[in-house]
Amino acid sequence: MESNEKKLTPISQLGEFGLIKRIAAGFRHRQPSTLLGIGDDAAIIATDGSYKLWSMDLLVENIHFDLVYTPLRHLGYKSVIVNLSDICAMNGHPQQIMMGLALSSRFTVEAIDEFYAGVEQACRHYAVDLVGGDTTSSQQGIFISVSVLGEVAKGGAVGRGGARVGDLICTTGDLGGAYMWLQILEREKSVYADVPDLKPELEQYAHILARLLKPEARQDIITLFESMEAVPTAMMDISDGLSSELFHICEASGCGAIIYEDQLPLHSETRSTAAEFSIAPAICALNGGEDYELLFTISEKEYEKIDGLKDITIIGEITKAASGIKIETDSGQQFDLKAQGWNALQ
Amino acid sequence: MESNEKKLTPISQLGEFGLIKRIAAGFRHRQPSTLLGIGDDAAIIATDGSYKLWSMDLLVENIHFDLVYTPLRHLGYKSVIVNLSDICAMNGHPQQIMMGLALSSRFTVEAIDEFYAGVEQACRHYAVDLVGGDTTSSQQGIFISVSVLGEVAKGGAVGRGGARVGDLICTTGDLGGAYMWLQILEREKSVYADVPDLKPELEQYAHILARLLKPEARQDIITLFESMEAVPTAMMDISDGLSSELFHICEASGCGAIIYEDQLPLHSETRSTAAEFSIAPAICALNGGEDYELLFTISEKEYEKIDGLKDITIIGEITKAASGIKIETDSGQQFDLKAQGWNALQ
Repeated sequence: MESNEKKLTPISQLGEFGLIKRIAAGFRHRQPSTLLGIGDDAAIIATDGSYKLWSMDLLVENIHFDLVYTPLRHLGYKSVIVNLSDICAMNGHPQQIMMGLALSSRFTVEAIDEFYAGVEQACRHYAVDLVGGDTTSSQQGIFISVSVLGEVAKGGAVGRGGARVGDLICTTGDLGGAYMWLQILEREKSVYADVPDLKPELEQYAHILARLLKPEARQDIITLFESMEAVPTAMMDISDGLSSELFHICEASGCGAIIYEDQLPLHSETRSTAAEFSIAPAICALNGGEDYELLFTISEKEYEKIDGLKDITIIGEITKAASGIKIETDSGQQFDLKAQGWNALQ
Repeated sequence: MESNEKKLTPISQLGEFGLIKRIAAGFRHRQPSTLLGIGDDAAIIATDGSYKLWSMDLLVENIHFDLVYTPLRHLGYKSVIVNLSDICAMNGHPQQIMMGLALSSRFTVEAIDEFYAGVEQACRHYAVDLVGGDTTSSQQGIFISVSVLGEVAKGGAVGRGGARVGDLICTTGDLGGAYMWLQILEREKSVYADVPDLKPELEQYAHILARLLKPEARQDIITLFESMEAVPTAMMDISDGLSSELFHICEASGCGAIIYEDQLPLHSETRSTAAEFSIAPAICALNGGEDYELLFTISEKEYEKIDGLKDITIIGEITKAASGIKIETDSGQQFDLKAQGWNALQ
């Protein structure tokens, strides 16, 4: 589309986040109701009462999922969850979704029914309404676009930029499970390719299987925050990986961080599978994405509220920007953390 | 994805609207703020003040556009417009958009810049804010997903179901131009394929070229309605074709319609190009989509307000359902209208 005289830059040279910044730089806001635009988990739109949170995610076949080991019902469920998770990550509650689906003629009405059965299951579970969307053809592959609207109290949204030195760094649930399951799937892919009716039967991996195939949005944690009147200073959902998300928070907040390896929450199955693949368990937790847990920072004054909660783990502390972003290993050594999150554009 | 024992139905058997009904039937609403869901140009979401209108559209390469004759800047512009048009079609004003873009590695950063230059131009022209989205890879082709949020006064949204017997049927602008330009492009496609720098130079077709390449959302008409305190009884934007949209209004409103061929607003270029292709001009207006004009019905009591306005044409009248949906030709004969709108799933 470009003449040969112009400089042409491959997208991979910028990467996803470089591209987002480049796009955002070309736009300015004109609507008074636009409180927050590009650059966080969701946009914030003012209304007379509480604020609206709004987000969109694309899921592209063979980029974000492989139908060889993703049943369509699970794909429908997960497509909704990854969006709901973005609203939770802003400290809000999802309320409505739109579903855009482009698919080739190889898919039948029954296949679409399966996909939407998963969408409906997620909608029912989270009391979220499907209120529209678009269904159309593609020449090849499935493209899914979900947009979600949610609600948050006026002034109650939690972005990425509020972390302060001394804040506790916490995550919900356990990490790295989805990543380990993906390793198993890649190993077993050749087997699955020969099985027409796709029902993975790897019972010993039940927990990590569910992490990838049927993730959940941590709306329960948002409700928990409300009930104990605790408000995080910064928050994101872990879609690309803990390291990558931590870098985003530190960049937006202008701070550093230290993470303690021995505090990283890992499920026993994740540990054993990591051993099976000779991968350090911490690597799964740091670099594995798609767990859709919440990473948040919270004032140390809230320590009493957070400490000992079953589903929340304190994994580190916010430090000065000059200290960098570090991990302290079990042996007490400190290393620079690398943001090796998954990047759809590399 | 299905076992061979189950009945498998090709999507084309249901068509787009059959599929939408099938999907909608599987969902129910649980959120009090969901006032209108699937089945109109936009969903209606209650807030404490005015209502939010929300819509989403997908644009898929080689289904909705052909890059051989669609410059990326125009594609960006149009991607926004088709969404803004949905908000106008509900009698509202668009305020924010989200842009989802999946594209293959053959596209460069400079190509994306071109696309977003068009997006920015549309945002600037309509004072709409780009507040988020998603940019990712595809294995093949460009997939565009745009979602739009708009605002309408509480109770001021105009859906498809309010047309009543005796209402005037009106359209804005002129119809069939985009369709005729598409005919030219298809004819000239082999020529363009050989030209590396794509700048169509068919000056004599300037008007209809703009209809397809650079459509506009009729926000001016919504502002006009407000200024003259006129509220349509039903409204849609003409994306699939006048006939198709009229069928939707009649179905949703439980009524029939009569359209007068000699009242259909056609531009002189559309007429001359139709003659060139030996197509009856009325066919272009009835079956050609992508004009993004508004089709609306309005009480005959508002005749004085509407009559003689430069950009609004009264083309017919709402009748009883039993009378069917008819067109009266120049010679006074009446025929049943066919809903031959464009269908992305056929």
